[in-house]
Amino acid sequence: MNEDGLRKLLEAVRNKETNIDEALQNLKDFEYKDLNFAKIDNHRTIRTGYPEVIFCQGKTPKQVAEIIKYMDSQSHNILGSRATPETFEEVKKICPNAEYNELARTIIVRKQEYIKTKTHIAILSAGTSDMPVAEEAAITAEIFNNDVKRYYDIGVAGIHRFYNHMSDIRKAKVLVVVAGMEGALPSIVGGVVDKPVIAVPTSVGYGAAFHGVAALLGMLTSCASGVSVVNIDNGFGAGYLAGMINNL
Amino acid sequence: MNEDGLRKLLEAVRNKETNIDEALQNLKDFEYKDLNFAKIDNHRTIRTGYPEVIFCQGKTPKQVAEIIKYMDSQSHNILGSRATPETFEEVKKICPNAEYNELARTIIVRKQEYIKTKTHIAILSAGTSDMPVAEEAAITAEIFNNDVKRYYDIGVAGIHRFYNHMSDIRKAKVLVVVAGMEGALPSIVGGVVDKPVIAVPTSVGYGAAFHGVAALLGMLTSCASGVSVVNIDNGFGAGYLAGMINNL
Amino acid sequence: MNEDGLRKLLEAVRNKETNIDEALQNLKDFEYKDLNFAKIDNHRTIRTGYPEVIFCQGKTPKQVAEIIKYMDSQSHNILGSRATPETFEEVKKICPNAEYNELARTIIVRKQEYIKTKTHIAILSAGTSDMPVAEEAAITAEIFNNDVKRYYDIGVAGIHRFYNHMSDIRKAKVLVVVAGMEGALPSIVGGVVDKPVIAVPTSVGYGAAFHGVAALLGMLTSCASGVSVVNIDNGFGAGYLAGMINNL
Amino acid sequence: MNEDGLRKLLEAVRNKETNIDEALQNLKDFEYKDLNFAKIDNHRTIRTGYPEVIFCQGKTPKQVAEIIKYMDSQSHNILGSRATPETFEEVKKICPNAEYNELARTIIVRKQEYIKTKTHIAILSAGTSDMPVAEEAAITAEIFNNDVKRYYDIGVAGIHRFYNHMSDIRKAKVLVVVAGMEGALPSIVGGVVDKPVIAVPTSVGYGAAFHGVAALLGMLTSCASGVSVVNIDNGFGAGYLAGMINNL
Amino acid sequence: MNEDGLRKLLEAVRNKETNIDEALQNLKDFEYKDLNFAKIDNHRTIRTGYPEVIFCQGKTPKQVAEIIKYMDSQSHNILGSRATPETFEEVKKICPNAEYNELARTIIVRKQEYIKTKTHIAILSAGTSDMPVAEEAAITAEIFNNDVKRYYDIGVAGIHRFYNHMSDIRKAKVLVVVAGMEGALPSIVGGVVDKPVIAVPTSVGYGAAFHGVAALLGMLTSCASGVSVVNIDNGFGAGYLAGMINNL
Amino acid sequence: MNEDGLRKLLEAVRNKETNIDEALQNLKDFEYKDLNFAKIDNHRTIRTGYPEVIFCQGKTPKQVAEIIKYMDSQSHNILGSRATPETFEEVKKICPNAEYNELARTIIVRKQEYIKTKTHIAILSAGTSDMPVAEEAAITAEIFNNDVKRYYDIGVAGIHRFYNHMSDIRKAKVLVVVAGMEGALPSIVGGVVDKPVIAVPTSVGYGAAFHGVAALLGMLTSCASGVSVVNIDNGFGAGYLAGMINNL
Amino acid sequence: MNEDGLRKLLEAVRNKETNIDEALQNLKDFEYKDLNFAKIDNHRTIRTGYPEVIFCQGKTPKQVAEIIKYMDSQSHNILGSRATPETFEEVKKICPNAEYNELARTIIVRKQEYIKTKTHIAILSAGTSDMPVAEEAAITAEIFNNDVKRYYDIGVAGIHRFYNHMSDIRKAKVLVVVAGMEGALPSIVGGVVDKPVIAVPTSVGYGAAFHGVAALLGMLTSCASGVSVVNIDNGFGAGYLAGMINNL
Amino acid sequence: MNEDGLRKLLEAVRNKETNIDEALQNLKDFEYKDLNFAKIDNHRTIRTGYPEVIFCQGKTPKQVAEIIKYMDSQSHNILGSRATPETFEEVKKICPNAEYNELARTIIVRKQEYIKTKTHIAILSAGTSDMPVAEEAAITAEIFNNDVKRYYDIGVAGIHRFYNHMSDIRKAKVLVVVAGMEGALPSIVGGVVDKPVIAVPTSVGYGAAFHGVAALLGMLTSCASGVSVVNIDNGFGAGYLAGMINNL
Repeated sequence: MNEDGLRKLLEAVRNKETNIDEALQNLKDFEYKDLNFAKIDNHRTIRTGYPEVIFCQGKTPKQVAEIIKYMDSQSHNILGSRATPETFEEVKKICPNAEYNELARTIIVRKQEYIKTKTHIAILSAGTSDMPVAEEAAITAEIFNNDVKRYYDIGVAGIHRFYNHMSDIRKAKVLVVVAGMEGALPSIVGGVVDKPVIAVPTSVGYGAAFHGVAALLGMLTSCASGVSVVNIDNGFGAGYLAGMINNL
Repeated sequence: MNEDGLRKLLEAVRNKETNIDEALQNLKDFEYKDLNFAKIDNHRTIRTGYPEVIFCQGKTPKQVAEIIKYMDSQSHNILGSRATPETFEEVKKICPNAEYNELARTIIVRKQEYIKTKTHIAILSAGTSDMPVAEEAAITAEIFNNDVKRYYDIGVAGIHRFYNHMSDIRKAKVLVVVAGMEGALPSIVGGVVDKPVIAVPTSVGYGAAFHGVAALLGMLTSCASGVSVVNIDNGFGAGYLAGMINNL
Repeated sequence: MNEDGLRKLLEAVRNKETNIDEALQNLKDFEYKDLNFAKIDNHRTIRTGYPEVIFCQGKTPKQVAEIIKYMDSQSHNILGSRATPETFEEVKKICPNAEYNELARTIIVRKQEYIKTKTHIAILSAGTSDMPVAEEAAITAEIFNNDVKRYYDIGVAGIHRFYNHMSDIRKAKVLVVVAGMEGALPSIVGGVVDKPVIAVPTSVGYGAAFHGVAALLGMLTSCASGVSVVNIDNGFGAGYLAGMINNL
Repeated sequence: MNEDGLRKLLEAVRNKETNIDEALQNLKDFEYKDLNFAKIDNHRTIRTGYPEVIFCQGKTPKQVAEIIKYMDSQSHNILGSRATPETFEEVKKICPNAEYNELARTIIVRKQEYIKTKTHIAILSAGTSDMPVAEEAAITAEIFNNDVKRYYDIGVAGIHRFYNHMSDIRKAKVLVVVAGMEGALPSIVGGVVDKPVIAVPTSVGYGAAFHGVAALLGMLTSCASGVSVVNIDNGFGAGYLAGMINNL
Repeated sequence: MNEDGLRKLLEAVRNKETNIDEALQNLKDFEYKDLNFAKIDNHRTIRTGYPEVIFCQGKTPKQVAEIIKYMDSQSHNILGSRATPETFEEVKKICPNAEYNELARTIIVRKQEYIKTKTHIAILSAGTSDMPVAEEAAITAEIFNNDVKRYYDIGVAGIHRFYNHMSDIRKAKVLVVVAGMEGALPSIVGGVVDKPVIAVPTSVGYGAAFHGVAALLGMLTSCASGVSVVNIDNGFGAGYLAGMINNL
Repeated sequence: MNEDGLRKLLEAVRNKETNIDEALQNLKDFEYKDLNFAKIDNHRTIRTGYPEVIFCQGKTPKQVAEIIKYMDSQSHNILGSRATPETFEEVKKICPNAEYNELARTIIVRKQEYIKTKTHIAILSAGTSDMPVAEEAAITAEIFNNDVKRYYDIGVAGIHRFYNHMSDIRKAKVLVVVAGMEGALPSIVGGVVDKPVIAVPTSVGYGAAFHGVAALLGMLTSCASGVSVVNIDNGFGAGYLAGMINNL
Repeated sequence: MNEDGLRKLLEAVRNKETNIDEALQNLKDFEYKDLNFAKIDNHRTIRTGYPEVIFCQGKTPKQVAEIIKYMDSQSHNILGSRATPETFEEVKKICPNAEYNELARTIIVRKQEYIKTKTHIAILSAGTSDMPVAEEAAITAEIFNNDVKRYYDIGVAGIHRFYNHMSDIRKAKVLVVVAGMEGALPSIVGGVVDKPVIAVPTSVGYGAAFHGVAALLGMLTSCASGVSVVNIDNGFGAGYLAGMINNL
Repeated sequence: MNEDGLRKLLEAVRNKETNIDEALQNLKDFEYKDLNFAKIDNHRTIRTGYPEVIFCQGKTPKQVAEIIKYMDSQSHNILGSRATPETFEEVKKICPNAEYNELARTIIVRKQEYIKTKTHIAILSAGTSDMPVAEEAAITAEIFNNDVKRYYDIGVAGIHRFYNHMSDIRKAKVLVVVAGMEGALPSIVGGVVDKPVIAVPTSVGYGAAFHGVAALLGMLTSCASGVSVVNIDNGFGAGYLAGMINNL
């Protein structure tokens, strides 16, 4: 609740249009729904402009299903990330029009048409194995009404594959660059575009890749400017942030 | 050089307005200035919209001075980051109107008026000790013509200091949040704003802070959305990226 | 055995009320029960005020069952932590009134009524996924006769969920705060309460969370005072220590 | 500000005893003093029961001196931790009755008599080299009016030195145990006392001690119950928390 | 082959009792048996006084069986470490009198009576969960004809369990001390005995135990003298070395 | 495409033998085949002298099969590394003459005779457990037409097994040395040969081997000259590079 | 105090030859000397057979001098390890016959003739830079009356330097092997001797040597049997343990 | 000594041209020169084709000077790496024609003309700050008679600087690529050349660069083939290996 809202509430209290207990209740009620094991953050849209997203990992299928059941009573599109097929089975029972993307491990319930933005987000992946993370980013961006263009398997081992699309890629308002192993693609991309690059390290690789650490460190220490980084395999976070920037 | 540029060059070649050797030279010449120990990237402005910045660490004072001497012949404002007083002394000899900011360790040569953007960047620091990094971010953003508002020492140990400025902070187009130790401030901020948050971990702290690693990991795994991270103590990178987003 | 006990023993020896072999035996016997593969620490209650708890992980179901069989001959309530369903099956055969909590992975044998303390412990969890650890803490505290109040899913992504309960939470004598990912909740809580905060990092998260390391480091470097930390996922340790403080 | 305070404020607003702007100002003013480079958290005493402590590391001597100058206008005893001799020199100019403890690296300004608690805190150190950290803990506890008993150089290499004092040590209400190298002392102590043990790893040692990491991990994984851990070398945090528990 | 052997060979060559090709062959033949996928080190007994032991991990059951088949043609007792039940099944087919110890994961083929040494090795384990590693050490020492005494579950959480056996333990010629979690037992033991202590960290524990790293670091940085360390879970190595020392 | 190619293209454009759109198409077409989920790098042979190899890990069996289906239309031998039996099953359906090596986890489609080089590569493994990685190196080198000699299980525990083959091994033009655990073999070998040694750490070992990290660090810090290192378990990379050097 | 001592004391108490207070005092007095900042472990010789050694690092020169002053009143030779020249200066004032070894950083006060053992310890160093650690081991062993033979700079880069001395080295009763960088020498040595090898990693090296970690891991995972490891740069610990074994 | 040498020696012994003591001496003498603190490996040239190089770090200036004094009596050019100015001062006294390169920290004594190879080595550095390491590589390669071409400051932030030299760079027989920070340059280069690439990570950078670890991991996990890696900042090793390959 912002300052204006607070001022109005205080004025209502002063004018005795609202008594104190009501005012207190008011502040308490519209903020979240308590499901006992979870407190759904209804206030989020007002606060950050975006509805809550369900991080399914670590929650039981039943818990996810119950959360989606509650959220289905509202008008927003619903997104669940890192969902297993088992979780989807449970959700399906309660919400038959839920959709599952096996690659990106997302559950989606479409309750509104997607309205595409005029500007778009470019999502690049270095390799084929990075696609699940890239798709998670793409689906997240799309559910928040962003136009997305995908450029997959264009990593530095054959960097001409990137250069062939470069002029096209530079038309995006913001870029998400997904890469595992040494994670060098964001450095290359960041050096030739004039737009923000959100780098996503993936856990693709073996040995000294240390489950994404090599790529993470590489991206954090990139000598290209305009590059910032999200957590390893965090396609959701990158897609969400890219959407936020695309909507500025 | 973008596709349009290439097409024009090819047409000039076809029309014999340009012979092949000239065309080759052309492609070679305007890209960088070779100072023997360094190759100044003149092409950067065309490619990324921003002139090259000098990362002084690891270069001798003489090398920095020589680079600034060359860049001084151009019209851009000049920024050197991570400069020691010794480096500044050397630069001063060659370029007397250079300015040094001891806190931020920056060298600046102003050759153009700063033109402030209409929208602004909010730069927050958790503690007093994080100020050098925050200032590096602020100075970087300002030299690239961004309006910057500073909110320092408002970290989570006394989080009401943040809440007092929250409604004001939310007016920024993009936020830079600088914090050491556990680096929790970006999570708090990211949970209550609807704008991109660039989190900068600092090496402030001791013991298990591991020179910024605790803050870095905390920011990467932030449960708030819309947060991305740059390298430890990388105020420059955050200020640069914030400026890029602020100018979208 | 404390100094008083030793003095009495020495006096008994001097007065020839006790011969030397008996005295030696005395010191040996009441200290532990040797089950061959395990030595049950009977002396613990005298020494630390609390009976031994069975850490089931790394023990075979048979071993756990045999230990519980022995302890069942005594009057204390019995607690087994980190027990698998297989272990519980084995225990059930020997001790039919044993209870299993699937979420917290605890086995309990109630042999005495729980007597609730007048003061209470507040147990907070940042997310739904942190509940298993929080419940382990709660069950541990309860079996040692502490009154416990639970506040779950009130983490920093929607920190108003915490503030809504803050005045209530501040009434506790000691707090256990359980959080994964960046583990920022203890910093927030520690900044606004005047009671000891026991922080429990959990392995919830992925990538740079490094199985709880990010939360652990964040809690250790917390800029809030009055916060101490136990091992990753160590709900038992937190519940035990909270009970100890609550009983001061 | 707790709920009662808020209710009174709302009532005053309703009764028009307070106008709205005043009410807003009220909420803003008493919370912190803004020194530009630092925001002194005046509200802390109300919130947590303890005045703010100055963490000197990372602040310039001038900044510390200015903070102490401001705090000197209040009635609380003042504590600065991790202060260099240079910082003390600067403070001395402004506040001549400031005292410096070279071992513990603390600055103290005594403005009130220390009132000793009836119960006391036992502070143990494993070795002579751990004394600076132990003393920081002791001084912190004392300035917050706790009675402290010191037991130094009683680590596990000659553990009989601990056992000789054990019955005495067990009389404390809470224990701080400081150890470097393998940090085994808290495990031994925690196994024989019925009081909370706050373990402080120190950076004493070399090689695989990794600047306190060996001790930190050892303490976190201690098989003794009732042990919690603070950051490496964080004597202040341990002393503060011990005082908080001692005052319960 | 030692210098004496070489001298004899050279003399034989000079005296033409041996021709050069024979001499070369001689040097080649008695050193190892080539099984194509493995080269059995027959020369080991001459060189180090002990026959080769089979490290089964990473070898297929067939490979282990084939190696044992070859070694069975010799007179030494045979030891295979880190053997799975599947490997044992395969070995059993070829060598029916092979014995499997499920706890220690060893395969043994007894071809000679064990001759017990007059002095003995004490093997201590901190907890019940450390027994597999302790047993691997014990079985290894025994097959090399050492007398072994076991003291299990006497770790620091109830250290009186150790002290009760201390005078007995001190009679050993060398000690193996096995511990997981914080691994503090070797420090305690090393402080009160005048014999070499071989410390074995185990992977028992969770969270900050990091699969044995906490115990390993604790043992390496032990402030007790006379303690050396082998790899995490390396019961074999400790038993082997203890036997070597016991036989001095 | 090298400078000559570019010059010819430019000349063709100037001479109007090629129009601009054709020229652009030309540059685009022969570089890679876009399979939607993957972009096969056809240009690789021209650029680096070697056709692309399929890294199967992280790709679905269907994806690998589709890639091989496309590559089967060309004349090169095909190599897939890190292939599971499931992947091979899928490939077999499409390409019946594909061969699978279970040990090395490679899929091979032979479309040309192997032509052996005159010089050869020596591939050494320290232990039997290192054979899968050594074989991956050998198969990779062979498919690129190199003559390979294998020397397995000759590690430092019985280093005479190496010395017995030393004079033979020294005849190779380049050596691949594969070792796990402490990874000392490359140091020994590097000290006695005058040829490049490519060291391959393997994940063989346990505890402080940290899945190959001990071997990796050992090889990187080898005091022998002429040794370079590839990623943990990267037999393919070593075989490829050895082939490249063998063909110089 | 061992069981015999205790029995005698108890008997004295029973026979009233000793009164209880005297008995208690007795137990307290001969155990350590309390110097306020340090408790000198007088009991150590009885318990472990060796007098206490002073670890000077982390102690002030004054503290070391005071400790040596007290110990000088006893008859044992005195050893201080990791002593700086400053510390020696301070000691010299109090104890003029103290000797300083700059390389090994030891202070020695000879109060008894060294009596050489019949068997000896072999101390090997891989490189010249490892000599300080090797010398610390040698001096430690010598002060405890062991005969020591030194073999320096015989590491694996030119391993023939080791083989030349091998037959001689094999005559030792126990070996100390000191090596930095990849630390491979103990593996080589352990594979060809039938005596215990104490491996000492040193911090010699750079980059991936990580201040001794590479050598430490290499030694812990050595495939040679009979090798155990002490802390990085812990020459003292190795010399002490070697002496203990040499005296068995 | 190779097999031929041994055969000749054996024949000489058989033919009584050599007596046994002489033969033994022979084997002992020509292998190394014992300087007491160092054993100069004279045999190295025979064994590996290259004379020994002096790694000065960790040796005292006197020790280096004495080694060079001895080597100066031989005919090889002399190279000392990682030499401080102090070491050079000492060397200068003994060997006045020694040369010092401050940037590369090398000492050189030229005793023979450099004979340039027909093929050459390309040495690339990503940034100006990487030059010291690149120069160490260059000087090492040159002293072993290789022709070297330098390409400095052509890293990925402005990758066109590399492409401008690409066709020239591809003419080298082997490449050394030096880079700090994210170390991406070897991936780019490895993807477009058909020659071996030796990647050298440098400690250039800050924060998450972790003194070269980010670059090291990036290079080890490079998705380009034909790339191998040496230790962080190991210019000497890269130059040596490159020379070895260039001479094949």
